[in-house]
Amino acid sequence: MPTIIDQAALEGMTREALEARDVETLRATLAAAHPADVADVIDRLDDDDKVVVFRMLDPAQATEVLDEAGWDATRELVSRLSATEIASLLNLMPMDDAAELLSEDVPERQQALLAAMRKADAEEVRDLLAYPARSAGRLMTERFVSVDPEMTVTAVLQLLRELDTEVETFSDLFALDAQRRLIGVIAIRDVLGAQPERLLSEILRPPSVTVEPETDQEIVARLVSQYDLLTLPVVNSTGHMLGIVTVDDVIDVLVQENTEDVLRFGAVESGNVPEAYFDVPVFQAVRRRVGWLMILFLTGTMTINVLGWFEEALAQVVALSFFIPLLIGTGGNTGAQTVSTMVRGIALGEIRLRDAGKVIMRELTSGLILGLLLSIAALGMALLLGNSIQLASVVAVSIIVVCTWANTMGAIVPLVVQRFGLDPALVSAPLITTLVDATGLAIYLLIARALLGL
Amino acid sequence: MPTIIDQAALEGMTREALEARDVETLRATLAAAHPADVADVIDRLDDDDKVVVFRMLDPAQATEVLDEAGWDATRELVSRLSATEIASLLNLMPMDDAAELLSEDVPERQQALLAAMRKADAEEVRDLLAYPARSAGRLMTERFVSVDPEMTVTAVLQLLRELDTEVETFSDLFALDAQRRLIGVIAIRDVLGAQPERLLSEILRPPSVTVEPETDQEIVARLVSQYDLLTLPVVNSTGHMLGIVTVDDVIDVLVQENTEDVLRFGAVESGNVPEAYFDVPVFQAVRRRVGWLMILFLTGTMTINVLGWFEEALAQVVALSFFIPLLIGTGGNTGAQTVSTMVRGIALGEIRLRDAGKVIMRELTSGLILGLLLSIAALGMALLLGNSIQLASVVAVSIIVVCTWANTMGAIVPLVVQRFGLDPALVSAPLITTLVDATGLAIYLLIARALLGL
Repeated sequence: MPTIIDQAALEGMTREALEARDVETLRATLAAAHPADVADVIDRLDDDDKVVVFRMLDPAQATEVLDEAGWDATRELVSRLSATEIASLLNLMPMDDAAELLSEDVPERQQALLAAMRKADAEEVRDLLAYPARSAGRLMTERFVSVDPEMTVTAVLQLLRELDTEVETFSDLFALDAQRRLIGVIAIRDVLGAQPERLLSEILRPPSVTVEPETDQEIVARLVSQYDLLTLPVVNSTGHMLGIVTVDDVIDVLVQENTEDVLRFGAVESGNVPEAYFDVPVFQAVRRRVGWLMILFLTGTMTINVLGWFEEALAQVVALSFFIPLLIGTGGNTGAQTVSTMVRGIALGEIRLRDAGKVIMRELTSGLILGLLLSIAALGMALLLGNSIQLASVVAVSIIVVCTWANTMGAIVPLVVQRFGLDPALVSAPLITTLVDATGLAIYLLIARALLGL
Repeated sequence: MPTIIDQAALEGMTREALEARDVETLRATLAAAHPADVADVIDRLDDDDKVVVFRMLDPAQATEVLDEAGWDATRELVSRLSATEIASLLNLMPMDDAAELLSEDVPERQQALLAAMRKADAEEVRDLLAYPARSAGRLMTERFVSVDPEMTVTAVLQLLRELDTEVETFSDLFALDAQRRLIGVIAIRDVLGAQPERLLSEILRPPSVTVEPETDQEIVARLVSQYDLLTLPVVNSTGHMLGIVTVDDVIDVLVQENTEDVLRFGAVESGNVPEAYFDVPVFQAVRRRVGWLMILFLTGTMTINVLGWFEEALAQVVALSFFIPLLIGTGGNTGAQTVSTMVRGIALGEIRLRDAGKVIMRELTSGLILGLLLSIAALGMALLLGNSIQLASVVAVSIIVVCTWANTMGAIVPLVVQRFGLDPALVSAPLITTLVDATGLAIYLLIARALLGL
């Protein structure tokens, strides 16, 4: 019984069999592996080998592998195989996954592949593609179990027995009226626990949460997580049921949003779908970083102006400049810490705009405390390095003010960004660091001028 | 039909009813709301009101609210109610959730509450508590549906009809042998689709993935996400089945790990369980930040030494110092970008240690390209500000070298940390920024000395 499947081992075996051209072993190895693992291995093979391995798979496995493979591998496979071959696999895929593949991985071949697909399936995919990217409509499947509330439990059990194998999930049944409006949800366990002759209308519960097809996937994920749902019905503005979002799609969304959060916090744009590290060509990776880097660089040039204003003071007390990197660095670190807690608190709905005053006071206070603690270290360090008590005091006082300032900025900037309807996750660690560089510098040199009488 | 439940509205109505002492309305409002929303409202009320509202709930709702409420609110409620009252709610809770509450929210009252609980339940909780924190054993529930492989489909359906309401999930049935060793999994849909007289042994599949109770929750989450599972069986080293982890617990883990990732990347320690923003007292928030800030501050003092070594050069060309914050800031930003992609790539298993060479070459290349692009801006900017072509060249060349260096460091540091068995997520944006500050400074001043002949 495999406890945890070892992908590295599978990769090794695959490569060995490929090298030895041992088709027998290769086929057996792949057939025994989970499609998700085969997809991971294919992601890591050379382009030619990707195709060789893919062609060894039976259609069911190939379909799942195509669904699970990375962006790069998917594109490669789709470009090497004929439209008919790919379309026959897309027909076997849950339609929400087919729509995702067509729109995100190979948009340029979308029309050709749709034309080669089975007509009913292609129609369904086109419906899904009409919804905005990253919406509930895109995530949902139209293959849910709909039932008539006037059915008996026995009739439902019979219906389930004969159900299309393409229905994705079984955990909940959805009772629709004659106009296909959603009137209730029945958990499969309630069906199994009920007397055979009871009517569904007697055991259904009104749906507690539904979303519209345009709802953003992040909200979908938050609802599923908040209410521990296995399925979330998607209903349009007239109450008609369009489909369900299943929990496995939500998990993918959470992993994807998580990646995006971390990248954004590092000031890296992610693609429409975050791809695996090696899937992004170097030039693409550069393109996703150079925008922010350039903005930050230009913002950072303010530091040159600030230093220019204080040229005289810096010339009089050369030692002043020695503490500049440390002071603004500490300010940046403090600000980055605050931003990470803010961005997360806002994303989870723990911090709302009307909490702004409370949040700012809180961060001002903790910045002050942190500044006081660090100022002790700063004072000791400056004296130890042989500086005058005057200069050491300037450094210590500056640390207190800079930490308080950086902490407060780290709270205010994400709130302002949110106030203007933008995503607070745009406020990255580098952004706050850069903002604190110029302002922290000015604070330090103003304090120096005041205390040293320059 | 509520599309999205408006928590702010529920909070407003609750507060109004509380103020007006309108018990009737309060009770009705709460009864109609989802326990997860009631928990969110309770989190935001004053301590006295928390208890008032909580006492209005019927036991089923109160149990769920207690489970869903934040750390702070849970502690407050548990401290205000008698052990008997709380224990009766714990008896109604899934035992994995009860164990989590007892160990993480109110460890100091664990023994008293266990003593007040129903004996069988307390026993089960004690079993769970014996597993390490954040392990599969802690997440799992012992209430899964176990079946004898020799049962017929009809017999299973009968069994399900009479099943304990405390069984958490229904999606998969687990076939155990006489020694309670796991021999197969049967999806409920396969049971419903099978002929009534068939034996389970004919339709069961061997379990594709299992974990041991000691497996870390992050691995559990990765497996559930990789293989789209609804349940994951937990099996000990002798093959005996202990319980299952359900997908709702995995979603909680993902949200929790996501919070931790962002906080860590901002160099903030999170608690054992990440609490909501306002749940962390200010002093506690300071305590979680001061450690890293102090380490970074002390590391940052290296910049003072570096500047000291180049004192003469800086005195000769005062304008050199004007570019210091911009140069090291840009290096820090570049490094932070790289670290964010690295940390994520490693966490998702896309980057492995044996890819180290490839990764380092890749980041060296993209750092070089980014540096070249920024150097054009740097050259123009330095000349525009009226600096000599010599000084402008020093700045431009330094930008190229510093970006390349910072990018490479951003790749190497997380790999080294992983190599030593530590979590690469420890490498935060502030850490890399601070490391780049001192080294970037040295690079800049060495280049200046060489090119300007100082």
